[in-house]
Amino acid sequence: MLRLHAIAAAVTVLAASAAAAPAPAPSLAEILAASPASDWRTVDPTRTLYVELPAGRVIIELAPGFAPKHAANIEKLAQAGYFDGGAIVREQDNYVAQWSQPDEKRSLGGAEKTLKAEFTRGLDGAPPFTPLPDPDTYAPQTGFSDGFPAARDPATRRAWLVHCYGMVGAGRDNDADSGGGTELYAVIGQAPRQLDRNVTLVGRVLSGIDLLSSLPRGHGDLGFYETPAERTTIRSIKLASDLPPGQQLHIEALRTDSATFAAVVRNRRFRHDAWYKVPAGRIDVCNATLPVRIVGKPAS
Amino acid sequence: MLRLHAIAAAVTVLAASAAAAPAPAPSLAEILAASPASDWRTVDPTRTLYVELPAGRVIIELAPGFAPKHAANIEKLAQAGYFDGGAIVREQDNYVAQWSQPDEKRSLGGAEKTLKAEFTRGLDGAPPFTPLPDPDTYAPQTGFSDGFPAARDPATRRAWLVHCYGMVGAGRDNDADSGGGTELYAVIGQAPRQLDRNVTLVGRVLSGIDLLSSLPRGHGDLGFYETPAERTTIRSIKLASDLPPGQQLHIEALRTDSATFAAVVRNRRFRHDAWYKVPAGRIDVCNATLPVRIVGKPAS
Repeated sequence: MLRLHAIAAAVTVLAASAAAAPAPAPSLAEILAASPASDWRTVDPTRTLYVELPAGRVIIELAPGFAPKHAANIEKLAQAGYFDGGAIVREQDNYVAQWSQPDEKRSLGGAEKTLKAEFTRGLDGAPPFTPLPDPDTYAPQTGFSDGFPAARDPATRRAWLVHCYGMVGAGRDNDADSGGGTELYAVIGQAPRQLDRNVTLVGRVLSGIDLLSSLPRGHGDLGFYETPAERTTIRSIKLASDLPPGQQLHIEALRTDSATFAAVVRNRRFRHDAWYKVPAGRIDVCNATLPVRIVGKPAS
Repeated sequence: MLRLHAIAAAVTVLAASAAAAPAPAPSLAEILAASPASDWRTVDPTRTLYVELPAGRVIIELAPGFAPKHAANIEKLAQAGYFDGGAIVREQDNYVAQWSQPDEKRSLGGAEKTLKAEFTRGLDGAPPFTPLPDPDTYAPQTGFSDGFPAARDPATRRAWLVHCYGMVGAGRDNDADSGGGTELYAVIGQAPRQLDRNVTLVGRVLSGIDLLSSLPRGHGDLGFYETPAERTTIRSIKLASDLPPGQQLHIEALRTDSATFAAVVRNRRFRHDAWYKVPAGRIDVCNATLPVRIVGKPAS
């Protein structure tokens, strides 16, 4: 079975009866259906996290191209079972879901508690960048690197991941170097772009973000739950490659440097269908669709 | 009792222990605490909707300055009890919550089923506009009008409301003039700015958006629930001014053309506190905080 997830949900018809209307231009689904296999990449199971919640699985792809030390550290934490029995401790509306291990005695295994910040990286040796043609409010240039929404500043020759819906970062205290991956958050609202270059983004949710975004909101300061009973338990966070081969999903992501992705972006910038009257002709980096498909049994 | 709601949640410290850190510049709370009473406006109860859900109340302010016919029509629908016993029928992750009256025989009272679209309006006679200084991806100019996020195009001399988190619109079919307010949606994810000028925005959620954003997602096409049992019932939608005076909340919104709001925007563009290392120096119209306070008993 093949499932197609349009993660940055971009289906836009607002009335039920319009769903069956004819489309005068290739639809997103048609573009993807016509894509060659070579325009897709297999998501590396050694950089994929399965977050098991009572309601199902959240799948996260880490971004070692931007946060190599954090990605490696989080992999070690997962292998040590650090997050198992942990909890989603914070759910702030239009902002983030955040999780950690409330048991302070839990072993980090071989992982570090804190790391030097990886807020930005140099352009030299950076993953290939596919720019978007439209102006961005926050950065000189935005686009996609390795399947992640990213920004660049040619003047400073720095690149960084940007805080779009579903992006995952490493919470920190006031010290820039006080994060490390023991506390992680996912964006569940309007892109909080003011966080860009202020906190280390470590990856993005490929599947199951709705399990994080639909949780009851916390009513303590900053959306923290006021009592442990309100928290959602994390059964485990495992590295996909540590599971028996039969339990590893085959996940494919559309290459963001492919012709198909360029067609997807065109489709999203100019919506030519029976519903739209005024195509925007523009797109924000956080409104682009980053298609992912899971080949095989879907996560339960 | 006075409660302060920062609707476009903008509290940004990501770790619990940082909450107590000293702030070297006036904080958002300090700016609001120092604001003169004249910088606030009382939200007009004749344009305020109370949406009663089993879990609590959602409060919506209508925008007759941009959608006068839709606002008046929705007021009539509320007065006819059109939505009472209706339901949230659609919950699409990172997109919208949508509600309607599934009972097709329900009387519209004196309201219309459909209206001519109010996607944009002329600049002449438009509500005062307070522009933001930063570039926007989608519109020549963005800012705030009458407390709502808005955009303008000096070339066409048109103005329109923009699809930020918590904005409320009137769903329609493919015909531009097929909406009218019997089907309403609220944005619960990344601003779907491609909808701007394609659908009539009728107002925004002042309080209780979390009651809409935290509902289970629908798994049918476009996020519609597959069975009526999954829907959330709407007990009633009433115009605040139709309630007995003792049941009407006194709601105040910070004037978006006030000096205090200008200070709020500066505070959000340049975060000078112990946590931020690189203030963005920019802000997106959908990342601005639009403070609202409820004087008197909060909505249950």
